[in-house]
Amino acid sequence: MLGKYLIINSGSSSLKFSLYEMPETNLIAKGIIERIGQDSEYSINFDGKKIKKRFGIKNHNQAINVMFSELLSNELISRIEEIKGVGHRILHGGEIYSSPVLIDENVIKDITELTKFGPLHHPAELAGIIGMKEKLLNVPQVAVFDTAFHQSIPEENYLYAVPYSWYKDYKVRKYGFHGTSYEYILQMLKDYYVKDNINSIICHIGSGASISCIKDGQCYDTSMGLTPLDGIIMGTRSGRIDPSIIEYICKELEISVEEVLYALNRKSGLYGIAGVNDFRDIENLANNGNKNAKLAIKMFEDSIVSYIANYYFKLNGKLDALVFTAGIGENSSTFRKRIVEAISKPMNIYLNEENNNSIASFKKEKSGIISTLGSKHDVLVIPTDEEYIILKNTYETIKKSKEKKLILKK
Amino acid sequence: MLGKYLIINSGSSSLKFSLYEMPETNLIAKGIIERIGQDSEYSINFDGKKIKKRFGIKNHNQAINVMFSELLSNELISRIEEIKGVGHRILHGGEIYSSPVLIDENVIKDITELTKFGPLHHPAELAGIIGMKEKLLNVPQVAVFDTAFHQSIPEENYLYAVPYSWYKDYKVRKYGFHGTSYEYILQMLKDYYVKDNINSIICHIGSGASISCIKDGQCYDTSMGLTPLDGIIMGTRSGRIDPSIIEYICKELEISVEEVLYALNRKSGLYGIAGVNDFRDIENLANNGNKNAKLAIKMFEDSIVSYIANYYFKLNGKLDALVFTAGIGENSSTFRKRIVEAISKPMNIYLNEENNNSIASFKKEKSGIISTLGSKHDVLVIPTDEEYIILKNTYETIKKSKEKKLILKK
Repeated sequence: MLGKYLIINSGSSSLKFSLYEMPETNLIAKGIIERIGQDSEYSINFDGKKIKKRFGIKNHNQAINVMFSELLSNELISRIEEIKGVGHRILHGGEIYSSPVLIDENVIKDITELTKFGPLHHPAELAGIIGMKEKLLNVPQVAVFDTAFHQSIPEENYLYAVPYSWYKDYKVRKYGFHGTSYEYILQMLKDYYVKDNINSIICHIGSGASISCIKDGQCYDTSMGLTPLDGIIMGTRSGRIDPSIIEYICKELEISVEEVLYALNRKSGLYGIAGVNDFRDIENLANNGNKNAKLAIKMFEDSIVSYIANYYFKLNGKLDALVFTAGIGENSSTFRKRIVEAISKPMNIYLNEENNNSIASFKKEKSGIISTLGSKHDVLVIPTDEEYIILKNTYETIKKSKEKKLILKK
Repeated sequence: MLGKYLIINSGSSSLKFSLYEMPETNLIAKGIIERIGQDSEYSINFDGKKIKKRFGIKNHNQAINVMFSELLSNELISRIEEIKGVGHRILHGGEIYSSPVLIDENVIKDITELTKFGPLHHPAELAGIIGMKEKLLNVPQVAVFDTAFHQSIPEENYLYAVPYSWYKDYKVRKYGFHGTSYEYILQMLKDYYVKDNINSIICHIGSGASISCIKDGQCYDTSMGLTPLDGIIMGTRSGRIDPSIIEYICKELEISVEEVLYALNRKSGLYGIAGVNDFRDIENLANNGNKNAKLAIKMFEDSIVSYIANYYFKLNGKLDALVFTAGIGENSSTFRKRIVEAISKPMNIYLNEENNNSIASFKKEKSGIISTLGSKHDVLVIPTDEEYIILKNTYETIKKSKEKKLILKK
């Protein structure tokens, strides 16, 4: 069990990896290979150093070879056998996986079948799994699913009001995403409040953004759905809209449903309204009086507040904490202020301006309470750590399987 | 001005009409011609009598002829010239019409161009207008738009977070519907509270269903959008969903986007989950333990509560009244009870069970307060009357235009 563990996050044209020493959870190195298949770029960070290279990498398999040769040549591992386990972030576990799982042939088959829910992600993730398997042979690999955390959501919250056969025969339902982020935040809340039955509304507000409702220490509802397009307005995604818009735009612009969905995923959201995607740029534009940037921020705020309101009612007003996390949630004190002020009256919470202003990932304080003592509920900022959860889940899943084998051997 | 007024509501294969005596607003007769183009059925009610006939009616023009010959033969009018004005319910006024308008060639042109937003309704409505014009020549006709009431909604609430050019070039935005119903309820609230700056959440819950947020006596937001498919779960409509579902179902079922939208409009909502559409049937099934009927009611409830929560936050908790109206809202005391109990804690309102149970259109009490005296906000049941608003708007628009002509003549 002691030794080095790799955490792999395969995107459609990228491979991110981190090498850890366990059980100390020491980060040894972190790297990324981008634009696989094109003019690839490779970078690795270790010992405070950063190495950057540029060369053609044809596919994920070749990317894995490059990663290992860099780990070896930089003496981050002395031989491949030092790797004791690998953890993979997998987008979609469907209704099959509500927890991490040791990868075997059946798991690979499931992930392959679930490609219909993650047509861009799953082929790359499978390439990562199979590439590692060829290299590491019997080293245990673990799949950690972005959807698993949300499998506790009850039927009335995960079903859409569409023909029931679409669920029964085609598994159309809400799955939810950002699961490892929510798992991390929930663990922090359980530790902080020293209890398991946490009630919370967690706002994971980054370029991709979702909100989850935690009831009695479990996920009760979440804003993302069948895909990450559902829910609130995001950096480039529309969130939930009138479905008729798709038919209308198909006809008016004479484009295909795929092209409309591409626009809803990549050309909509804050970008659709403000013309830029990065939230800092939008805030700067708004401060300089740009009308559409102001409008985008207001719409983003309203969209988030509508889900907070919804989940506050779902929790019957019983709430331990409202939490902000991820890029914008951790760093934009002005946006947090907008949200807290918008919900202040109906929720009886008030902003501690000083605390709020002092918290950002680039400031001394990275987490803390931003509500006043007189508030009815706590408002917290907690930086998320999805990789830590993937590492922890990988390590523990492997540990459990080894203990099980020991018991079986007795 | 004194005399008889016709109110016309043309559907894609139907023509509803009512004949009133003004200014007394006496209903003289009410009729409907259904299944135009097929095996048509015709019925008219007057003087407590009901006449029903069955015969082939080819189109709306012929339906108008039939209507007039029935009005004449039953001596409800003695000659066509007795009709002093006609009011038409028109689905979609786009961004052009925020109030009723006297119909002229330009209005007909606008309604024709707005057919893209009401492809099923507008051709029938235009046939109704043109048919009446041929018959009545210069008798003033008024268009009363279902969308007009919502034109006060601010930009941040009517825009979708889609490419801004879709709004600028193709007018993709929230329009809202059931406008005449909301106008009626708002007038009742202004009379009841003896003030204009009403804050209210109005739940128009029928087979088609929407919720509006009234702020300072004006519409501030509403749940229906570009089309009536947006918003909450309805009798056969899905409401707002993850747009990706459309692309996914197109692929998995190998059907067109039009077929998916047909299913979302006609085979979804309560019907999609419970397999039946009529709410009384669903309630009966649920009472007999049917799992999917129970599920449908719970999802319907949650969907409505999510909008009430959203609008309560938008009003900053400042609310004169929450109102239930339309078929289910007026008649199902058990469903009203579910909603009030679901919002009771966060809104500090409590159900007056006795009052609630005594109100339904088939009971002695048709309207009233169903919250207790100790509640923070009033909860009211008010039966809606869309036809009254169309009649009132028609009469007043014609009156104003005549007064204007008088002034011009001086």
